[in-house]
Amino acid sequence: MPRFALKIEYHGAPFVGWQRQPDLPSVQGAIEAALARLDKREHTISAAGRTDAGVHAMAQVAHCEMPEGWTAFRLSEALNFHLKPNPIAIVDCAEVPSDFHARFSAMERRYLFRILTRRAPATHQAGLVWQVKHDLDVDLMQQGANALIGRHDFTTFRSTICQADSPVKTLDHLQVFQVQTQQGVEVHFDVRARSFLHNQVRSFVGTLERVGAGSWKPEAVSKALSARNRAACGPVSPPQGLYLVGVGYPDDPFA
Amino acid sequence: MPRFALKIEYHGAPFVGWQRQPDLPSVQGAIEAALARLDKREHTISAAGRTDAGVHAMAQVAHCEMPEGWTAFRLSEALNFHLKPNPIAIVDCAEVPSDFHARFSAMERRYLFRILTRRAPATHQAGLVWQVKHDLDVDLMQQGANALIGRHDFTTFRSTICQADSPVKTLDHLQVFQVQTQQGVEVHFDVRARSFLHNQVRSFVGTLERVGAGSWKPEAVSKALSARNRAACGPVSPPQGLYLVGVGYPDDPFA
Repeated sequence: MPRFALKIEYHGAPFVGWQRQPDLPSVQGAIEAALARLDKREHTISAAGRTDAGVHAMAQVAHCEMPEGWTAFRLSEALNFHLKPNPIAIVDCAEVPSDFHARFSAMERRYLFRILTRRAPATHQAGLVWQVKHDLDVDLMQQGANALIGRHDFTTFRSTICQADSPVKTLDHLQVFQVQTQQGVEVHFDVRARSFLHNQVRSFVGTLERVGAGSWKPEAVSKALSARNRAACGPVSPPQGLYLVGVGYPDDPFA
Repeated sequence: MPRFALKIEYHGAPFVGWQRQPDLPSVQGAIEAALARLDKREHTISAAGRTDAGVHAMAQVAHCEMPEGWTAFRLSEALNFHLKPNPIAIVDCAEVPSDFHARFSAMERRYLFRILTRRAPATHQAGLVWQVKHDLDVDLMQQGANALIGRHDFTTFRSTICQADSPVKTLDHLQVFQVQTQQGVEVHFDVRARSFLHNQVRSFVGTLERVGAGSWKPEAVSKALSARNRAACGPVSPPQGLYLVGVGYPDDPFA
């Protein structure tokens, strides 16, 4: 059967996360239900990143199989129709070779994390950022972040329920920068790796926030990493500032 | 009594608009109620722009009077505390001379209008943009917009319930431009004038959208203006793309 890659945007708030759970609203479950409306059988889809409850995506990638006759355009239109009123949108769709696998073919996952720094409560951006009431020093945060780049045992920055076989991962990119918006200064994290451990990005962000606030020295991040001990991690950030923004494949299916 | 200027951000969706109405949720009513929690008397505040139902603000300006002893910082903190859980935030506050009047001292109002152009439904930006499913030609839209700049009788672009004495206003600035966002192409309108008629910006935007979509020629905007007839206007845009983003005063109270 023809295989299609779906590029998916969603607002994480109403969902228990990407992964289907019985009787609970999940992104996977909503898309599988929409697929079943178009092609009456059980659909099971795989995604590049299994985002947690409350985490957003701008460009999650999953794949599905559909009978002959469907085009990518018709499929995305029909899915968007049946996904309403869920805050899930198929923003791109492409037919892919039968050996394309959204999860196993992926060579890179890219995450964005947004912190809004201001005292006044967020209004338009509520639920879309992690708000802290103090300023953050991004130079210090980047100094701390630099210790994390490369191949390391990330036990410290891994949730205790993480199911990965090994805590050793290669972090390719972790850049911290300020963005001036009309609603205040945001601190953004651009984080890239082949794959991530459970809660790894949120553990990085929560720890580096402490550095930016001045309560941790940048060198403490390197020490926490070396400890290879979950107890050495800083606080884990809340989910609502985190976005899966891209997945890299040897051949970009949406190019 | 000391007078304070408030810079106010709000999400327009839950409100009938800025203006207080009996038994209905309004931005003015919410702020007046918060003021009454701090200083037990009836407060009536004036704002630079009386935004309609569903219209947002990033920098509405209003003024209030408080007893001796309040500082701008304490006042904004206390108001933000009592405004919860309304999506209203006091983002700046400054003590001003007793002759400062948020409405009558204002020399310029600046509005932003955001159109998101894409087929897939908006998720993170739902309620924060007007979404259209087709592309828009911003060059044609700017050609149409140019006819509106300057001093004109804007009867065509004025709601029939507008209470202004005269339909003659001077439009200082109307720029239409594309913004590439991570969630698609947006078309933004930067609109500035000393003052506006009721529904004027939304009448401009709805008409210029028809130009961008190709169903009106740019010259038709000039003809519609000359008609001085409400029936000659294009559709009025929905409110959720509109933001009051700034108010100009001879002396910026927040500088």
